[in-house]
Formats: sequence, C-alpha cells, structure tokens
Amino acid sequence: MAANDAVRRSVVLKRRPSGELRASDFEMREDEIPVPGPGEIVTRTIFLSIDPYMRGRLREEQTYAVAIQVGEVMTGETVGEVIASNHPGYVAGDIVVGPRGWQTHAVAKGDNVVKVPRGGAPLATWLGTLGMPGATAYAGITEICKPKPGETVVISAASGAVGSVAGQLAKRAGARVVGIAGGPEKCLWVQDTLGFDACVDHRAYDLAGDLKAECPDGIDAYFENVGGAVQAAVFGQLNRFARVAMCGMVSQYNDDEFPAGPNLGFVVGKAVTIQGFIVSDRPARIVEWRKLAAPLIVSGELIHREDIHEGLDRAPEALAGILTGQNFGKLLIRVGPDPI
Amino acid sequence: MAANDAVRRSVVLKRRPSGELRASDFEMREDEIPVPGPGEIVTRTIFLSIDPYMRGRLREEQTYAVAIQVGEVMTGETVGEVIASNHPGYVAGDIVVGPRGWQTHAVAKGDNVVKVPRGGAPLATWLGTLGMPGATAYAGITEICKPKPGETVVISAASGAVGSVAGQLAKRAGARVVGIAGGPEKCLWVQDTLGFDACVDHRAYDLAGDLKAECPDGIDAYFENVGGAVQAAVFGQLNRFARVAMCGMVSQYNDDEFPAGPNLGFVVGKAVTIQGFIVSDRPARIVEWRKLAAPLIVSGELIHREDIHEGLDRAPEALAGILTGQNFGKLLIRVGPDPI
Repeated sequence: MAANDAVRRSVVLKRRPSGELRASDFEMREDEIPVPGPGEIVTRTIFLSIDPYMRGRLREEQTYAVAIQVGEVMTGETVGEVIASNHPGYVAGDIVVGPRGWQTHAVAKGDNVVKVPRGGAPLATWLGTLGMPGATAYAGITEICKPKPGETVVISAASGAVGSVAGQLAKRAGARVVGIAGGPEKCLWVQDTLGFDACVDHRAYDLAGDLKAECPDGIDAYFENVGGAVQAAVFGQLNRFARVAMCGMVSQYNDDEFPAGPNLGFVVGKAVTIQGFIVSDRPARIVEWRKLAAPLIVSGELIHREDIHEGLDRAPEALAGILTGQNFGKLLIRVGPDPI
Repeated sequence: MAANDAVRRSVVLKRRPSGELRASDFEMREDEIPVPGPGEIVTRTIFLSIDPYMRGRLREEQTYAVAIQVGEVMTGETVGEVIASNHPGYVAGDIVVGPRGWQTHAVAKGDNVVKVPRGGAPLATWLGTLGMPGATAYAGITEICKPKPGETVVISAASGAVGSVAGQLAKRAGARVVGIAGGPEKCLWVQDTLGFDACVDHRAYDLAGDLKAECPDGIDAYFENVGGAVQAAVFGQLNRFARVAMCGMVSQYNDDEFPAGPNLGFVVGKAVTIQGFIVSDRPARIVEWRKLAAPLIVSGELIHREDIHEGLDRAPEALAGILTGQNFGKLLIRVGPDPI
C-alpha cells in the first residue's frame, strides 16, 4: 500500500486462535487517518516488527501484559515518519521508533517514542539489533549468562533477531559459542557470517549427540529461545553453576496445553540458575544498549540480517511463519516507503 | 553400643539400592579402633547426622560428589569426642564436629574438623540448626529467596532441619511465611512453636487450594526441599519476580527414573529465578552462620527440634524413614554417650 492513501488500514483480531495461528484469525479494517490530540503525534508506518511474543498476547490469560481482544488492533513496535505533531519535540518528517500497532498510521504520545537520527544505523535495525530484540539479548547475556572467557555458551534460535545478537555478545566476551538453528542454510550463516564457533541443526537426527560433539567441555550458559526438545538436549549437558537465560519458548507458543517439562533435580546438584526475564522490565537497558550498539552496527562489527515482507497484508502470515521458524533474520513488514 | 567397646563398628553399603531404600541394603562391619596417623585425630562418635542427601550418594551417577561403593562405610557428619590426637590443636576430651562416617570411631585430619565449645549450644544442634542444614537454610534465604517485609515466602518440609530454620529466618526478615509439612502434628508445631504464619498439610485433599487460601497475594519466594506435587502446587502460584531456592527434591530420591517436571513457560513471563545451590560450595557461609546462630539458639530465639534414634544399628532404617517424612525434626543417631 502507498503510505499516503486517504485511509488508515489496520489489522485486527478476528477470532481468538486455538492451536496453530492462521492468517485468517485476523482481518483488515479501514478508517480515517487520525489527527493528533494534545501532546500527540501521528505517524505513517514504515516498518512493523513481527516477534514471537505476539502470539502470547492472543491468549486469554496473561502473565505480565494485556490480552488483545477480538476486534482490537494487533500490537507491535514500528518505525514511522511523523506526519502531524501536537508535541513540541516533533515536526513532520521526523523519524520515530515506538508507535505501536499493525496499521498504516498510528497515534502516539510524543513522550513514548524515540527519535531516530538520520544517517546512522539503518532504519530497519531500530526494530531488530538496535531494538527490543537486541536489548533483550544484551540484558540476558550481561545479567544472566555472564559468559567468561573459555566458557561454552549455547544460543537457541541462533539466526533470529535475539539469538544472533546474544551469540555475538558472548563471542565478544571470549566464550566458545555454539548456536542451534533450523536447517543447514541458517546454520551455515550463523557459523560463517555471525562467527559462532559452531552451529547445530535441531532438525538433524541426533541433536543431543551433535551438541555434545560441539560442546566437549559441557555447557556453562544457555540463552533459551525455544523450549521443547532443544531445551531438553541442552539441559542434559549443563555444567555445574550453569546459567540459563529464559527469554522465550517459541516451540510451544501455538500449544493450547503446554507439555511437561524437565525434572528439576539437576538444578540442585549442579547448582544451576534458571532465570526468566522480560526486557520491558529494564527500560534503562534499552537506552544503554542503543548507545553501545549503534556504532557497532555502523562499523560493521555487529552483524544484522533482516527478513522483510512487503505490505501490511502480509503481517498475519508472517507471524504464523515466525512461530514455525520460517523467517531468516529479524522479521519485518515494510508498510510504507523510506522517508525521502 | 557403649562407646568404649574394644572394637569399632561401621555401617557399610551391602548392595546398591534400587527404588525404595531398605535397611537391608546395609550391613554392620567390625574392625579395630584406629590409631591416629600424623596430623590426625581419632574420635568416638556421639551423634551421627542422617540427611536426605545421603540417598543421592548411593547412586552410581553423581553430579558433584563421589558415590559410595558397595563395601564402603556410609558417609555422614558427626559430633565426636577426641580419644587420641596426633594434631597439636586437639587433646583427648575435646569435642569436635566434622569427622565423617556411620561408625562408632572415626579418624580425621585435625584440619578438617571444628572444635565445639563447651557450655554453648547443645551438642545435637551442631549437626542441625547450627550445622550443615542450618547453614543451608541461611544461604538459601539470604542469597536466593531474599525475602522483603510483607512478601509471602513458602517453605516445604517446614518441620525439617533445613525448613524449620529457613522459615524462621524469613519471619525475621518480615515476610509472611507459610510452611508445607506432612500431617497435622507437624503443621501445628510449625505454626504454633516455630511461629510461621500458617502451615499447609500436603497430605490433605486439595494442596493447591489450601495453599492459595494461605497465600492470597501469591508467592514471592519458595524454599524447595520436596519436589513433585508440592513443587507443582507452589509453582502455579508464584508471582512475577519470584525466587525459588532449589535445596532438594526429597520426594524423588528413591526413584530410579525421575518423573517429568514443570513446563517452564511461566519462568519467562513471570521473570522467575530458579536457583540450585549446595552449601558445601559456600564454606564461608557455614562459619558465618555458626557465629550468628549460636547465640540465638542459647537465647531461645531460634527454635530447634531433634528426632534422636538410639544406636548406630538404627541408622539404615532412619535414613529410609527420612525419605518418606517419618522423622519429626532434625534426625540424629545417638551413637555414644555425651562427654562427662
């Protein structure tokens, strides 16, 4: 869709999904392009971020957020261009990250968005490596995994928006870093382009055996994005005093009932720490990470990869696809053209 | 047995147990009372500590210790009286804690034991509240559970050697403390004598419901000694940012194969920390705890209760019993008389 259509298009939840998410659980709605109220800005969306956590927002029961209700616009981070402003800090043409929603135009409180400097890191990275996923990786690695030189760190969903950053940070800390990803193409990229020491294909016949071959001294830290059989394979090879950063368990996000998990006896004897975290509980980390990472992106020291689908209509099928690992890199929807 | 028999009696492993431990998995052996080598002392045992972790030492596979082999003397902390010394720091008549083994007499390196001052806390407490179990409770509460005033802390095996101390420490920190114990007699004692705010009987019909009634604001910290159904009930009621100190899972120590555990999805969304620990990894904590706790025991501020069985022959059945919760308080074997 061109960005300056006279209508706003929004993706709303049509019915609460049960089991595997389908694109038909959503529908498109049109209304007028809004005008900003006091202190507000209106943006046209350039990129929309698609992330696995969004499946969780569709559940009736929530642990830390608010469920999306049927008929409501789906939530999601965007990069957009200000087209109207009632906030002293913004003028038309400013680029901002933060307005939320699967829609061509969004209203936001000016205090809730961040201005993107022109000429720095590419716009798309503000939703991936420089955005919430990158800050998540940063928080999990620095606060929980705490890799030491020579230790072995395993990263699941290693080619994804979070895993790709987590592994590069663990490498920078001097650890041996082993990724887990789905399929040979992703594994090759993780190893050859991201520079992990190895990457194991979880679709292969013997995940535990392949992992053991790449982690001969056991596993000292694990960045968990996946759950299920991948979790079981890693947990069986944790060393004493291992740290597990529990970031996500995407393998079960489509499940109505969650499967049983690991017996936790090993946690006692091996003195393991398993710690869940949500980056939105640590807003200071996001600010800190953006300062630290932006120059590394510009200099090429921090590798990023985006998987960009064209058009807001593609958002539902893109979310369905990320839950089964069909994306390769940070999944984004291009909703409108880059600013001039 | 009188302590000054001319022989030493020792309990050795007769066969590696499979499933439920039986007293017949052990047998008694007699030999000569040893003489101390250079730097060594020989003690006669007064009290022998029986603890759930001992079942783990009988497994072939070990995570942090060495397995007891068939024909070897069973391991265990004791309080004993020095009867011969080749160490400049000890003379006959000194009381020491630390010599290891299910036996009437033990040889120990003088540097590996701790001298017990006369006239302070009762001898038996040096193996319980003042010993490894008490220090374990101290480490788990102060380093992992970190209770804040007004928070709700749940302690399983609340009447046991570890749980009774953990709960009292959480109370001193200003938390609402709810114990879980087996049967009305233990629950009453936990509530009325130890001063927990409530105690729930895990043998009752609806553990989760009873727990919820006593934890109306959810659970902020859990000191885990039990595992199994008790763990499942508590995990289902954890609040965001809850801390779980994984001290033990005694309900499964007789299992040859461990049952499946909890799905860990909640750990992510609730940002829960589940941390295993072994007090022997923190020797400084034991020293610190003894200094802190001894005056509280003497003053009566820290309540302790011992369950003392008479005679070394009773040790095997006592260990079998502690695994099914038959003890009430710190389980000890009186092997020989108190010093004069």
